[in-house]
Order: sequence, then C-alpha cells, then structure tokens
Amino acid sequence: MSGAHVDLNSDVGESFGRWELGDDDAVLRVVSSANVACGFHAGDASTLRRCCETAAAHGVVVGAQVGYRDLAGFGRRFIDYDPTELTDDVVYQIGALEAVARVAGTRVAYVKPHGALYNATVHHAEQARAVVEAVRAYDPELPVLGLPGSRLLAAAEAAGLRTVREAFADRGYTPEGTLVPRSEKGAVLSDPAVVADRVVQLVTEGTVVAVDGSTVQVRADSVCVHGDSPGAVAMATAVRDALGEHGVDLRAFA
Amino acid sequence: MSGAHVDLNSDVGESFGRWELGDDDAVLRVVSSANVACGFHAGDASTLRRCCETAAAHGVVVGAQVGYRDLAGFGRRFIDYDPTELTDDVVYQIGALEAVARVAGTRVAYVKPHGALYNATVHHAEQARAVVEAVRAYDPELPVLGLPGSRLLAAAEAAGLRTVREAFADRGYTPEGTLVPRSEKGAVLSDPAVVADRVVQLVTEGTVVAVDGSTVQVRADSVCVHGDSPGAVAMATAVRDALGEHGVDLRAFA
Amino acid sequence: MSGAHVDLNSDVGESFGRWELGDDDAVLRVVSSANVACGFHAGDASTLRRCCETAAAHGVVVGAQVGYRDLAGFGRRFIDYDPTELTDDVVYQIGALEAVARVAGTRVAYVKPHGALYNATVHHAEQARAVVEAVRAYDPELPVLGLPGSRLLAAAEAAGLRTVREAFADRGYTPEGTLVPRSEKGAVLSDPAVVADRVVQLVTEGTVVAVDGSTVQVRADSVCVHGDSPGAVAMATAVRDALGEHGVDLRAFA
Amino acid sequence: MSGAHVDLNSDVGESFGRWELGDDDAVLRVVSSANVACGFHAGDASTLRRCCETAAAHGVVVGAQVGYRDLAGFGRRFIDYDPTELTDDVVYQIGALEAVARVAGTRVAYVKPHGALYNATVHHAEQARAVVEAVRAYDPELPVLGLPGSRLLAAAEAAGLRTVREAFADRGYTPEGTLVPRSEKGAVLSDPAVVADRVVQLVTEGTVVAVDGSTVQVRADSVCVHGDSPGAVAMATAVRDALGEHGVDLRAFA
Repeated sequence: MSGAHVDLNSDVGESFGRWELGDDDAVLRVVSSANVACGFHAGDASTLRRCCETAAAHGVVVGAQVGYRDLAGFGRRFIDYDPTELTDDVVYQIGALEAVARVAGTRVAYVKPHGALYNATVHHAEQARAVVEAVRAYDPELPVLGLPGSRLLAAAEAAGLRTVREAFADRGYTPEGTLVPRSEKGAVLSDPAVVADRVVQLVTEGTVVAVDGSTVQVRADSVCVHGDSPGAVAMATAVRDALGEHGVDLRAFA
Repeated sequence: MSGAHVDLNSDVGESFGRWELGDDDAVLRVVSSANVACGFHAGDASTLRRCCETAAAHGVVVGAQVGYRDLAGFGRRFIDYDPTELTDDVVYQIGALEAVARVAGTRVAYVKPHGALYNATVHHAEQARAVVEAVRAYDPELPVLGLPGSRLLAAAEAAGLRTVREAFADRGYTPEGTLVPRSEKGAVLSDPAVVADRVVQLVTEGTVVAVDGSTVQVRADSVCVHGDSPGAVAMATAVRDALGEHGVDLRAFA
Repeated sequence: MSGAHVDLNSDVGESFGRWELGDDDAVLRVVSSANVACGFHAGDASTLRRCCETAAAHGVVVGAQVGYRDLAGFGRRFIDYDPTELTDDVVYQIGALEAVARVAGTRVAYVKPHGALYNATVHHAEQARAVVEAVRAYDPELPVLGLPGSRLLAAAEAAGLRTVREAFADRGYTPEGTLVPRSEKGAVLSDPAVVADRVVQLVTEGTVVAVDGSTVQVRADSVCVHGDSPGAVAMATAVRDALGEHGVDLRAFA
Repeated sequence: MSGAHVDLNSDVGESFGRWELGDDDAVLRVVSSANVACGFHAGDASTLRRCCETAAAHGVVVGAQVGYRDLAGFGRRFIDYDPTELTDDVVYQIGALEAVARVAGTRVAYVKPHGALYNATVHHAEQARAVVEAVRAYDPELPVLGLPGSRLLAAAEAAGLRTVREAFADRGYTPEGTLVPRSEKGAVLSDPAVVADRVVQLVTEGTVVAVDGSTVQVRADSVCVHGDSPGAVAMATAVRDALGEHGVDLRAFA
C-alpha cells in the first residue's frame, strides 16, 4: 500500500527521582511520538530533560502527557477535580514540559491526558472541557491525542483544536469498535506477532478483528504501544518492524 | 530629583490550595514587579493564574520566584541539591509559570530565587551557577534579580545575563553595605515612616544609614517590600507614597 | 435538665508548614473532642504535636481525622482509591498521629474521616468498609464518629466497632432528618444565637426544626462546630455557652 | 567459634506507588533486621504493610528507617531542618510505621536514620540530638542503630538509649576504623566472596583489613547489606552463607 503511514506513540518520562520506570532509550528508538510525563503523576524535571534530549536526538516528537496531581497513585485514580483547577493544572504541566523541551532542543507538539484523566475524559464532559480549555488557552495550534468517540476529542473539535485519533496495539475491540473493558476476556493481547499483524491491518485496511470474530472499522492516526517492560519494548519493536515490512512509514502526526 | 525612578518588588502567589497567604490583591496595587511563586515552595496553579491575571490588570511585571522543592518547609530550608537537578527544577518552574502567565495575558520577565535558595546563592557558587544556567538555557534575555555582591549576580554576569541589584526596604545594613544578619540587633526595621524615609534616601542619594550610624553607599535597581501581613502591606504603601512625594517614579526594570 | 450532656467536636491541626489555618488554641478552649488532621490532607508533624499538647492541656480528647492523600485539594476532592490502599493509608495516618499524641501526653481516642472521604463514606460502601477495616485492624476499641445513616457507621457497627452519631450545629436538616445539600437554600446557618438554640433543642429534646418548619427527630452523641474563621469560633463559643446555660455538660464520648 | 552471632540489616520498603525498588521478598529471606522506610523518603503505606507482613512471616525484626521529607531526592540530600521539626517528623514516621507493623503482626523494634540524615547525624550534633529526642520521647526502650563514633550514637547514649553499632559489608575501612569516603579508591567492594570473608573476620575476630593493608579493630553488633539490585541480593546471600559456614548465628539485636 503505497504512501501509507502512521504514528506510533508511547508513554515515557515516568521515572521519578531514585525510581526508574520503563526503558525510555529503547522506546524512543521505536516510536515517532513520545507522550512525556509532566511531573504531576510521574516524572521529575531531570527525567523529563533527559527524555526530551533523547527524543530530540532520535527525531521523536514530544507531547505533554498531562495527569492528575497524584504521585502516590501514578495518576491512575480518578480525582473529582474542580474544572477550573484542572485547567490550571494542565496549563502548568504543559508549560513546565515546554520549558524543559525547549532547553533540550525540541518543543511540546501535542497534548495527551494520562491514566485516569484519559479514562475520565472519555465520558466526563466537564473534565474533558477543562483539559481542552487548557490547550486552547495555552496554544490553540496544539493537537489533542485521544480516543475516537471520546468527550475529549468532541470537546477539542468544538473548541477548534485539531484532534488525533488513537488506537491501541495490544487491546481487543468490541464489534462496535470500542475497547473491550479491561475486566473482560480478550481485553489485552500479549503475542507480539498477533499484535503486529493487527496493527498492520488497522493501518492498511482501517479494520480490526473484534473479539467476536467480526471485522470492524477503526480509524486511527496514531497507535499506542508500551515500553514499561522488556516484553512491551519487544512488542513495540515487532509492530514497528511489521509496519516497515508492509511499506507503512512511521510519521509523527504533529 | 527629576527623572528618578526605581522598581518595587514583592513576593506573591504563595497561597496553596486551601491555605491563603498574603494579600496579593493589595500588594499588586503597590509594587511594579511581582515575584510569583512557581509551585515548588508555594503556589498551586490556580493561585498563580489568579495572581498573574491581577498583575496583568495592574500593569505589574511578573517574575519567576523559583525555589527548592519543599512545600513543608516553604523553601526556607537549605537543600543540598545536585546542581544539574537544581538547574532542571528551575527550568521546570520558569516554564510552568510562563504558561500560566501567558494564559493570563502576561509573561515571565525575570527570575529571582526564593528563601533558602536566595540565601544559598549569595555564597554557594555551585547552586548560584545552577540557577543561572537554567535562566541562560531557557532564555538568556531574562534578567536575574538578586543581592549585590552575591555569587548569583556574579554568575549571571559571567554568563552574559542582565543582573538587577536588589535592596531591602525593612532591613538594616552594616557599614560595609551588607545586610545585618537576622540574628543581630537592627536586622529588621518595623516603623513604616522610618522605612519609607530610608528607601527615599536609598533611591535619591544611593545611600543608607548603617546600624552604626555611618552613611554607606548602596546601589539598587529594585527595592523589596513584603505583603504577607496587614502591617507589611501598610509599610509597602508607605514606601510607595513617600517615593511619589519625592518625585520618584515606580518603574519596573524588566 | 439534670444529667444531660453532649460532646462538641471540631477540626483542628490543619495548618501546614508556613500556612496557618484556623485558631486551634481558641477552638480547643471550646470543644470536648478534637478531630486532629493526620498529615495527608493537612497538618505537618509539628502542627499536630502542638495541637495535641494544647488538647492535652485543656483535657480535650484527640481523634484522628483521616483523609485522602491530597494536600493540594485539602482532602476535599473524591479520589477513587483502591480499598486496600485506603485501608493502609488510614492505618498509617492513625499511627502517625498516635505517636505524636503520645509524645504530647495524650492518645488517639477515636477516628473521623475528613472532607471528601467523610462525604464519600456516607454512600460509598467500599470506601466505608476500607476505613472501618483500618480502625478494626489497628484497634477495635476505637470508636468511629460519623453521620447517622451513613455506610460508614453501618460498616463500623457490622465490624463490631463502637459508633458515635454526629450532628452539625450550623447545617439545615430536611424533614427526613438528613442534611440539606450544600447546593440548596437553608443548607448552612450563620446566626450564632439561632445555631446555639438549635443545638440546645437537639441535645435536650432530640429534635431540630427542619427547613420546611416541621420538627424532626435527630439523635446525636456529638455536635460538630467549626474553628476556621473568627466567626466560626464565636459561633462555637455561643453553642457552648448556651448548652451551659441549659445545664448541659460537655462530655467527650471517648 | 561457638556462640558467635551477629545481626544482618538491610533497607526495605522503598517502593512507592507504581515504582518498585529492590527485591524485598528476597532480602527478607536473608537478613535478621529490616530497616523499613516510613514514607518520607520512600515507601507508601501499602508497601510498608506488605513489607512488614513478609518480615513477620520470616521472623525478621522491623526497624523504622526514618528520613528527610524528600521523595524527589529519596532522602539523599541534606536538608537544613529546624531540630524541633526534625524531631516531630521522626516521631510521626515511627508512629506511622508502628501502626502498619502492628496491623501486620509485628512492631517497630529499633530506629535507624536513612540516607542523608544518616550521614548528617554522623557529624551534625543538632540533627543527631533531634533524632534521638524523637526516639526518647516516643519510646526510650527503642535502640538506635548507627555508625560507631557518630554524633548519633553519642547523643543516644547520653539520652540513656541503647545503641547498636553498625558495620558495612561492602565498604572499605581506613586504618583508623572509619569508612573510606565514597569519593576515594577502595570505598566500595564488589566481590561477594571477598565481602563475605571480610564479614566473617569482622564478626569472629572483630577486625577488618583496612585499605592500606593493615588490620584494624572494628566492633559491630549489626552488619548492613543491600538488596536494591540482583547483585546486592547475591552478595547478601553470600555473607549469610559464609557466616553460617563459620558457625556464626544470625540473631537480631532487638
């Protein structure tokens, strides 16, 4: 399929002080876009700077992965934020990473919510609008990366922001094209070869095989892979290699 | 004295969540430059945003008051930072405030260290260089506000940054022109009229009366006043009024 | 009314480092039970120690006011904790305060959740059980102070813990005997004389006048008053004085 | 050598939320005393609880490893604490761990400072006294584990506390019996067999071979081993095995 391309994104910069998490150097050799933590759910300033330097060296685009202020919970617990405070916290995080990125020779080129904030903004209209308002107020040229059909992307579109649709390499899909909930069978796939094949089909044909065996249309501009374990890096590499073998270029969306 | 002018600066933005500190609205009607906390020693994102909005409304210039990561100690305890980590933390803080300021319609126009970091960088060459390196790497056009004779201003000058010399309205001076240590008699002055007169003399004649009664030369581009108590705001107002009566204009240095 | 008695409780120990909140010294001269913050939503260790020393000096009983780990939100934002982690965090907080209290010459004599955790455990069965499990595992002799009809008290009772029912001096009640939601008219009362009279009626007759004018039965072993503003302390004092005038003794429940 | 015995201690409980550090399960099968973090430099409440449960299951004695309030710096940066605040923070930490330990079926049996606080209290008399005052006020029966010749042990002795002298399995010693500074050659030993032999000599003969080849007397009641890497666990195991082969029993001091 001539001219086909896609973006691969992954979470990085999630170490904190003495605590290391993930193999950022390995991941940044695989992906085209890096969702860099901003210090609220993970990521001290030195981790972010090193991460941005490595991203810059590999030509990987940096995005701000904004999250709840919750180091102990790693941003994975829903917090019932006041929307204005959420907007302010997101602006603060984008700016902090922007400064670090600038010093490292790059810049923040998109925004993606992390963890529980990502999940919340699929359905929670107020928090979705709060995140979008932060991006709009800070820089309306920044695209927002999120789940197709989410409140987040709807709010971003309504605010005139560019939206980027994300698919997940290792997640199962329902016949309706939504993610299989993590509590259900078939939610997460673990075989790198299977995952790589699915991503190729997703990118070249715009479809995935759902949990019930049916084929469902899924449109995505970026595919999320992981890097927080050796197995995850191996899977991400398998995805990248398979895309290359099928003539699909990796190309950052931003 | 025709054409005389000086800058008045004060710390603001030091509330945190439920905890309020200082009367920022009152202070921002008095000073020409606002040292806004950046979240590490004080200041949540919503406090910073409100503070920057008020500063913008009153035409007060915003500076980044960077500090140690120590909310419990309010940045008033020396921390033996690794210099690279200090540089990274300062970049992070400047950027966070810059984003908030931008959304509020203004921008970060200078940098001043807070509390124990301010005191440390008077003598501690490594930490002084670490702060300066952050400013230089982030934006070499940003001036650094600090104590005359400090390692901080020396390092800033060596790095090609603009330096701004600060005097303290309510502090006693030694015959050598340095601050009387807080542990000694005469370190802090409390009479607003006396303080106001001293600032007028400082600005119009470039001198202060030292603790031993001698007159000593002190050059300052900005005078620090406080706002964390009703008495402090009254004193700052007295200083501003006295300067006005002597034909001294308030003018931000940045 | 011979032999009548009640407990008055209030939140204290909610300063943090440089930030002061409430007039603990004044409040501890009024109440019989002090809900002392434990460091997660507010309260540094030195604040807690001073607070416990003052409580001990005035014969005020100390309770652990446990909360979410959320200084920036002052524990007022619901956090979707894993129940086991909530149990562990509550045990940690009780123990921290217990040590401080012991050094100050007193001890933790009961547990009351704070803010959003208090509100959550009215309805949220899992979090209610998680708090109760912490108390039961730490010391099943500790009573739990909470809202009558709450999941919290139900879970505490089911676990064999002693439960203590709380009423709010300054809150309006529905004809069903529940609190008027804060978003509705009549939710909060501000006249100290009115509030004092209502508390006297509550304690001596077991009833309050609801928002619709009807008289409703409300049973309470402890009445919550506030101390985070000069007006709040004045109201608490009015309540105490009115109780005294009606021959009601203040008596801690623990 | 009939009747010889020694204690082996190691730092555990230093994970935090999503971030794992060290192999506590492996370490707790090797040592007789566990220095469990208390949440200020590392260790969330759930980590501490699991760690205490495992320690209890293996009959390992639990000590409170108290540290500076500095998660970002992992307690490895000197902080110029006010001594009273340090005392209060140490009491708070001991109590928090005590509650968690109690729920896990064990208790805090000794106190050891962590990281920069350990290093500071070797020479810093005020901080040493502040730590000791916390232990004395909380429970004067708790022994203090520290470096022979340190201000910490001197202050503990002066306060009537039991002191426990510690040696380091993998550190070089000067001819004076002090540790070779980390910046110098011979500061750290990496060969498990060599380290094991040295510990055997230390325990059975009370001597070590110093960096200059001389034999120096070193008295220690407990030997510190590490567990924060697979190599560290292997070394700790080698030490334990060598002691067993030489008839030295592992026996906790507390």
